[in-house]
Formats: sequence, structure tokens, C-alpha cells
Amino acid sequence: MIPVEGIPEIREGDDLGDVLADAAAFEDGDVVVVAHKVVSKAEGRTVQLDGVEPSERARELAADEDPRRLEVILRESARIVRERPPLVIAETRHGFVCASAGVDASNAPEPGMLVLLPLDPDASAGRIRSRLLERTGRTVGVVVSDSFGRAWRQGTTDVAIGAAGIRTLLDLRGARDRTGYELHATTIALADEIAGAAELVLGKTRGVPAAILRGLDVAGDGTARDLVIPADRDLFR
Amino acid sequence: MIPVEGIPEIREGDDLGDVLADAAAFEDGDVVVVAHKVVSKAEGRTVQLDGVEPSERARELAADEDPRRLEVILRESARIVRERPPLVIAETRHGFVCASAGVDASNAPEPGMLVLLPLDPDASAGRIRSRLLERTGRTVGVVVSDSFGRAWRQGTTDVAIGAAGIRTLLDLRGARDRTGYELHATTIALADEIAGAAELVLGKTRGVPAAILRGLDVAGDGTARDLVIPADRDLFR
Repeated sequence: MIPVEGIPEIREGDDLGDVLADAAAFEDGDVVVVAHKVVSKAEGRTVQLDGVEPSERARELAADEDPRRLEVILRESARIVRERPPLVIAETRHGFVCASAGVDASNAPEPGMLVLLPLDPDASAGRIRSRLLERTGRTVGVVVSDSFGRAWRQGTTDVAIGAAGIRTLLDLRGARDRTGYELHATTIALADEIAGAAELVLGKTRGVPAAILRGLDVAGDGTARDLVIPADRDLFR
Repeated sequence: MIPVEGIPEIREGDDLGDVLADAAAFEDGDVVVVAHKVVSKAEGRTVQLDGVEPSERARELAADEDPRRLEVILRESARIVRERPPLVIAETRHGFVCASAGVDASNAPEPGMLVLLPLDPDASAGRIRSRLLERTGRTVGVVVSDSFGRAWRQGTTDVAIGAAGIRTLLDLRGARDRTGYELHATTIALADEIAGAAELVLGKTRGVPAAILRGLDVAGDGTARDLVIPADRDLFR
């Protein structure tokens, strides 16, 4: 696990593949985990609160907080899963269920600005991966991560909201353990464990938005969309 | 991340601190993650299906599977959270919400045997930690891990069900990011990210039940119980 130090403040239009290629030496098979905040900033996925007109629903959900922020959250939501104003758990258009539909004010480019999730984080990861191949000749995996809360458990863990060039799920169904017992119903969310591992070195307050995991042997063609549980199998809808 | 190779099949009464001390060279500040299966086996937390008499409720929940397994799950459950026979999501007496109340047949010592969660996994972690200190003179952190499914997301990630000698939650409330924005409501479930990272090297089918994470700087006195969200703050009860 190698933090990628020295990444400058990212602005709209920056090419993250170039930025990463300048900042680190990659090897074939590396997985680079990039905090979604810098991806969103590079893609201009930010909103200035000044121009936002809150709806009645946003005012209801805001309690004593800024209703404009809740308005932005509502616009990013496909469905509100739970509400305890001003706390909202929402399903995003990607299918992710998370606090505030992934809308966040921390590490925003300037005060009064909110950072949204990338429109298509798998595609974002794919673009970074392609650019890294062009620039470095190295075939790497890319994970775009965000910090999600979990039902029933305290605290956030970083999970994969975008991925390219890796297996995101490891299906052990049909594999056998050492005693010959068939491990059914065992699918490991590899990409989420990779994102969480990277968080241990990313450091929200240390300004390190990317980390490299070396030696994992997880090359593949999974996506982070595969990590969203299909509605018909979801016991918690 | 260092897999601990060469651990023999664990039997009831084995001292895992001794087993680990024999298998690896520790350094101060290491965190050793141990799959709960070996902890449960060492502690005799197994059940032979032969002696189990299923209740009517267990038969209901079993669908076309073995009702004795469901009976064991019911005995390990404080509360059934969701059911889709034969799938049961339960809250254990520790407060963990997971499939089958943590009852598992894979990697059991023998066929027809189920492995339960340790009675007090934080205490299990504490005993391993104390023994490692006695045997090696090294002050390490210990995490006991299990693979949990998650609401809304595919696949399992390993999480901490027991911990000793580490911070399990990293509270960033009051910390400031690089632009001075106060990061409120940001608490990172460090111990879960550590458990998930270790899973990347543990390998369910490779028979490696422990891994060492070196260089993390997470010494503290948290517990895995701290990772259970208090009922009054739980939006998903």
C-alpha cells in the first residue's frame, strides 16, 4: 500500500491520468485507488450553493441546516431510503445507497461549494486507466472510492463507486475449502476491500487523494455497478 | 500486508497466541488479523448437527434445507432482522447483524459440524494479544474478523468482530481538511477497513487464517463492540 504524495489541488478539466502518471511510478498489475472527490472536481461535478433555490421538501428535510444543501441532495437522489432531518440516506441514480446521496462539502474547491458523485464513476475509472496506459505503458486497475456509512455499524468504510481493469467481485461459489466443503453463497466484494485498504493510507486530512496497492493479482473487467445488489435480491429495500 | 503461513489445523484448546508466535515474527505496532473460524475452533464454539432437535420455527425457516442448521442459527440470534427461507439475517447477542447469525459450515473441523461466533470476540482478541506480548515481547493489535454481507451491496467484506490494542474507530469530528472546512460526522471504521484489507491476503480457500498489517499506527484501546451502532441512532432497525 503506497500513498501517492504530491498531487496538487485538482481543478475542473485536469486529466487525472496525467496527474497520477506525473506523481508515481506504476507497475503492471498495480491497483490505484483514487478518492472520488478529485475525480468529481476534475469532471466539474460541483455545485455552488449560491444559485440553488430550495424546494418545500428540501426545507422539510433540512431541519435547522441549509435547505439549499438538501435541495442538491434531492436532485442527486433517485429515492430517499431513510430520513431523520437533516440526515438523509438516499439511493443515487447509480444505485448506490449512501448518506446525502454522496453530496459532500468537505474538501470542496471553495466555501459554499458542494461536491457531487461523478456521473459515471466506472467510466471515470476507465478513462484514468486508459490514460495511465498511454502515459506509462503499464496495465493497472483503477478504483474510484467514497466513504459510505453502513446499516447497523458505526463509522464509514471506503468502498468502490467506480472500477476498471479489476475483478470487483470474487465468486467462490463452487470452490472448496481445505476439508472439501463447498463454499456456496460466498462472493467477496474485492473492490470494496481494496478501497477500504487504501483508505488506511489515504488520510482524509493529509491531502493524499490516491494510493497504490501492489501485488494483489486482481486483474479483470468488473465494474462498481456490479457491486449494487439487484433489486429482486435486496432484502433491505 | 503479510500472510501468516504455516498455521496448522486448529483444534479446541489450542492457544492461538502460541500458534501465532510460533508462525510469525512480530514487530511493535503490528496488527494481526485472525479469521474468527480459528478463534471459534480453539474456543470449542462448534456444534455437531447430530444432537440438534429443530423447533417448528426452525422448520419454517429452513425451506428445503436442513432445519437443524436453522435451529442453531435461531439459538445464536437475539433477533431475526430479515428472512427469506432458508436465508436469515439475524442480530447476534453481540449486536452484530449478519447472515445466519454468523453460523457457518465452511472450514468446520469435520462434516456435520457448524462453527459459531466466539462468545466474546473482544476478549478473544485480548487474550491473543496478551499471549503474544508474553511470548514475543511485542505490543501488537489484534483483530478477529468475519465475512459479513451488507445491505444494498453485493458480496461480503471482512469486518472486525473482535479487537484489542487498536483504535477501532477514528473520529475526525473537529479535524479540518486542507481548505479549513470542518469534517463533521466523519468517523472512520478503521478496524473494519483493517479486517477487509487482511482478507485480500487471507484467502478463504488457501488455508491462511491470519495476516499481519505493518506500519499502520493505529494503537489504541477500542473494541469491536464500539462498531455496533447504538439502537437509538440506528435508522435501519
